[in-house]
Amino acid sequence: MSVLFEKLALVGVGLIGSSIAQAARQKGLVGQISVATRRAKTLDEARNLGLADSYSQDACEAVADADLVILCTPVGAFEPVMKDIAGALKPGAIVSDAGSVKGHVVKTLAPLIPEGVHFVPGHPMAGTEHSGPGAGFPELFEGRWCILTPEAGTDKKAVECLSAFWEALGSDVELMDATHHDMVVAITSHVPHLVAYNIVGTADDMETVSKSEVIKFSAGGFRDFTRIAASDPVMWRDVFLTNREAVLEMLGRFLEDLSVLQRAVRTSDGDALETLFTRTRAIRRSIIDAGQETAAPDFGRTQPDPVRRDIKDR
Amino acid sequence: MSVLFEKLALVGVGLIGSSIAQAARQKGLVGQISVATRRAKTLDEARNLGLADSYSQDACEAVADADLVILCTPVGAFEPVMKDIAGALKPGAIVSDAGSVKGHVVKTLAPLIPEGVHFVPGHPMAGTEHSGPGAGFPELFEGRWCILTPEAGTDKKAVECLSAFWEALGSDVELMDATHHDMVVAITSHVPHLVAYNIVGTADDMETVSKSEVIKFSAGGFRDFTRIAASDPVMWRDVFLTNREAVLEMLGRFLEDLSVLQRAVRTSDGDALETLFTRTRAIRRSIIDAGQETAAPDFGRTQPDPVRRDIKDR
Repeated sequence: MSVLFEKLALVGVGLIGSSIAQAARQKGLVGQISVATRRAKTLDEARNLGLADSYSQDACEAVADADLVILCTPVGAFEPVMKDIAGALKPGAIVSDAGSVKGHVVKTLAPLIPEGVHFVPGHPMAGTEHSGPGAGFPELFEGRWCILTPEAGTDKKAVECLSAFWEALGSDVELMDATHHDMVVAITSHVPHLVAYNIVGTADDMETVSKSEVIKFSAGGFRDFTRIAASDPVMWRDVFLTNREAVLEMLGRFLEDLSVLQRAVRTSDGDALETLFTRTRAIRRSIIDAGQETAAPDFGRTQPDPVRRDIKDR
Repeated sequence: MSVLFEKLALVGVGLIGSSIAQAARQKGLVGQISVATRRAKTLDEARNLGLADSYSQDACEAVADADLVILCTPVGAFEPVMKDIAGALKPGAIVSDAGSVKGHVVKTLAPLIPEGVHFVPGHPMAGTEHSGPGAGFPELFEGRWCILTPEAGTDKKAVECLSAFWEALGSDVELMDATHHDMVVAITSHVPHLVAYNIVGTADDMETVSKSEVIKFSAGGFRDFTRIAASDPVMWRDVFLTNREAVLEMLGRFLEDLSVLQRAVRTSDGDALETLFTRTRAIRRSIIDAGQETAAPDFGRTQPDPVRRDIKDR
């Protein structure tokens, strides 16, 4: 593919920053890549992986002359980083981010963006439960959504260039209002994470059932929750601190529904239980049909097909 | 392997019954297999898969002369099935089951077991979100736990024979008190399922975020919940109806903890959030170390390693 940006600067080089660097380089989308991260150890890791052309602990150094700057730190670090780099940004540069929350990002960063620099907030909806530069891989964004939330009046060309970049990384790009984005992710991502963190915590803290029993017998459902409850703690702390209102709103609905379900269990209302369980199964089907999931049983942990065919063919 | 039982009868032939049949035959553990299921369509499916030596809609016919009978229907059908087959059981036969709940099974079935027949309740802790005969595969039980909950005074030889059978299917067998079993599964399996069903239901029922958006953007965490919320509705209805007390007890704890977490979000208590999120990450690690899970990122939905190595080696 052709070069879309002469210089890409990534501030923060965890799972997301590392994956952007690898994908952009593999597909030839940028002339050069600079990465900046505060911790020397993380920077060494990035250097050992050969992720970029230049490495710095100084974000100002990394963003100098960059045409595209993407903030890939936890959301809580965006504001100090932006204050730091504002004076070093090249006129005409695009500043974006990879934060999971958008309303807060717009509110805190927009006033800090210098005249002549284009601010296009972004959220690549992709990730795994692993973190750090070594967890990155270039296919991370393939077939995943990237939501951009530019405010009204943002330079159209800048939005188009950034969209083209994410599309070249394999993502489907969608433009959305920042506030609506935050509601969508509250229910599809933030509350599920909160609930997963919570149930793993509850199970870890029981006297009638030992921790070793919880671990031993986790395959019955519990372990699926532990995957998302293993996501980066600092990143997720910042998500809940910065998307508080939407999370509390969605959590309130979740709790309301759970009370109804709790009552159905208490009153042995089998019909109500079966009705809900049948409805949720259909939603799974829709997600698979939409290409957002595989139908492999048990997340492909086992390989049933060849043997089943053997038996049938005998 | 050597034949452990001359005749195995399976009453119910969904995911579990089908997998037992396939595994027992593949490993040569039984002389012959008979299956019974009420619905003609399911029986035809089993026949087309070649799962057994004989097929019947009449459970009495299937269990005649069987040395091992395993009830593989939803738990709610156990009592009528047992009343039906009691008179047809061979003296000395072992009756077991694959139900996810054990206290209720012991209470309802034990009084129905004829003199001279051994009752050894069992729970293979294995499954996928798919159901029906076609969903079964012989490796389902490999490396998984099978919990047996014989009451005091149960014939030792019968317990040993059944343990040997499950071990031959690849499972690790553990003996446990039925009541304790029900608490263990309430927290490791039943409450996680209830919570997953609930959040999928909540997301399906919103006015600010459309259903198509929930499906579209499900990769952020939500889709992991939909897998277990796609499990068999009737089986799970029966689980909650028959393990009500333990589920309500564990759900109460979950809700208590969730209130604390909700307050941490509301009061922006970042330290409390980060502390919990760090603790839950360690539990994930323990589950992987215990061999109950793979460390593949995102459940192995992507294949990061080869490419990452490429970049490193350049």
